[in-house]
Amino acid sequence: MANSTSGESMTARLVRVLEAFTPTRTTLTAAEIGRAAGLPSSTAHRIVSELVEAGLLEQDEDRRVRIGMRLWELATRSSHALLLRQAALPFMEQVQARVREHTQLAILDQDEPLFLERLSHPDAGANITRVAGRLPLHASSSGLVLLAFGDRPLQERVLAGRLRAFTRSTPTDPAVLRRMLDGVRKAGHAVTPGFLDEDSTGLAVPVRDEAGRTVAALSVVLPRDAPTAFALAELHRAARAIQEAMGHRR
Amino acid sequence: MANSTSGESMTARLVRVLEAFTPTRTTLTAAEIGRAAGLPSSTAHRIVSELVEAGLLEQDEDRRVRIGMRLWELATRSSHALLLRQAALPFMEQVQARVREHTQLAILDQDEPLFLERLSHPDAGANITRVAGRLPLHASSSGLVLLAFGDRPLQERVLAGRLRAFTRSTPTDPAVLRRMLDGVRKAGHAVTPGFLDEDSTGLAVPVRDEAGRTVAALSVVLPRDAPTAFALAELHRAARAIQEAMGHRR
Repeated sequence: MANSTSGESMTARLVRVLEAFTPTRTTLTAAEIGRAAGLPSSTAHRIVSELVEAGLLEQDEDRRVRIGMRLWELATRSSHALLLRQAALPFMEQVQARVREHTQLAILDQDEPLFLERLSHPDAGANITRVAGRLPLHASSSGLVLLAFGDRPLQERVLAGRLRAFTRSTPTDPAVLRRMLDGVRKAGHAVTPGFLDEDSTGLAVPVRDEAGRTVAALSVVLPRDAPTAFALAELHRAARAIQEAMGHRR
Repeated sequence: MANSTSGESMTARLVRVLEAFTPTRTTLTAAEIGRAAGLPSSTAHRIVSELVEAGLLEQDEDRRVRIGMRLWELATRSSHALLLRQAALPFMEQVQARVREHTQLAILDQDEPLFLERLSHPDAGANITRVAGRLPLHASSSGLVLLAFGDRPLQERVLAGRLRAFTRSTPTDPAVLRRMLDGVRKAGHAVTPGFLDEDSTGLAVPVRDEAGRTVAALSVVLPRDAPTAFALAELHRAARAIQEAMGHRR
């Protein structure tokens, strides 16, 4: 009943429809969705009208559709991401107010850092991070923290995989990266000068739960040659405060 | 193919499954979901496994499921809510830093204020607002702003509907509420002493787009008898700054 003749579930098709929307393509026609999702036009039109009917997509006067507020609400109000983010937000604000640079919170999801929150300062420089965006584990400070304090199979998967060079400073040699992860574990933080773009340095620290497991990475982005000591001290202080705040919520 | 014998679309059932999760019930078994969604157990189990397979729900070792990070990511990364929220956040932070009380941003969705963001101060008092939560239009400062600057049919629907009393101060008489909306339009902001709970006062101002249409309400929650002039001035200043920031993004 819920399966098409191709054996793919209706849910899988629905996910493909939602995946057609991206941060740079937020409004699409049903035909564009069909092409992006690889679905026959009639199927795409039917799923889109069902999603509009249910409020998960919204349609404007030109029959172009976008992600609906109802989907955001359903996905957000009960999510564990929201609990961590809400616990972290007051302390992220303090970091951002003192360091006056972009401040981010990321968790590990499907072998990538997924950014739950980003606070930007009007005066701060460029930042490649987006809320609900992802960056590679080996090239971002958040990624290196999540990798260094993550489990061994994850580390082996990443070290054995493709390590893309974003700049001349991105670590792409597994042996170099392995030593770097040792360094992150010893120092308790990651510093990534120019790894993602030539002009900036990422700094990240682990956020731990009561059992000492790393559940997130807290990070700031500084200009490439800025001093790091003050920002690192602020990050460590905030990470401890977030850990305590989460403990109190249990 | 996508419809059950009851004529209800697969998408509608899927929405009912997602609606079973609430801020206080974030983890459920498939059987609990079936009961909450009014679906036969076999149907609930099948939809849940499809959603887990697609990553929209996540399952723990006890086979209990929760909203998946993938759903949050898909719903968030392309949403218009995120664009408005990201434009507003730096200015909300300034309000929160200066006023040192809860600061919120709400839009109108399906005749209710839907809260896109809430910044809390560790020292601030109780706050009934949740991110991705809703409050009634007639009893919250955000609601009164969205109502006063909303369209006439919306106002008539709300004035003709049930006006629930949360405290002795909640306006429940349509004539009183109508005068109150006039007052909000004249003053350019709403002040709601004790409307939602006896101990606090909400203050809200409209956030407008370039065409002068109200697209959101920016609000703070103060202790009931706190002075309001400074907070209102900060809210008006921030609302103008958000309007300018959104203009620059077009």
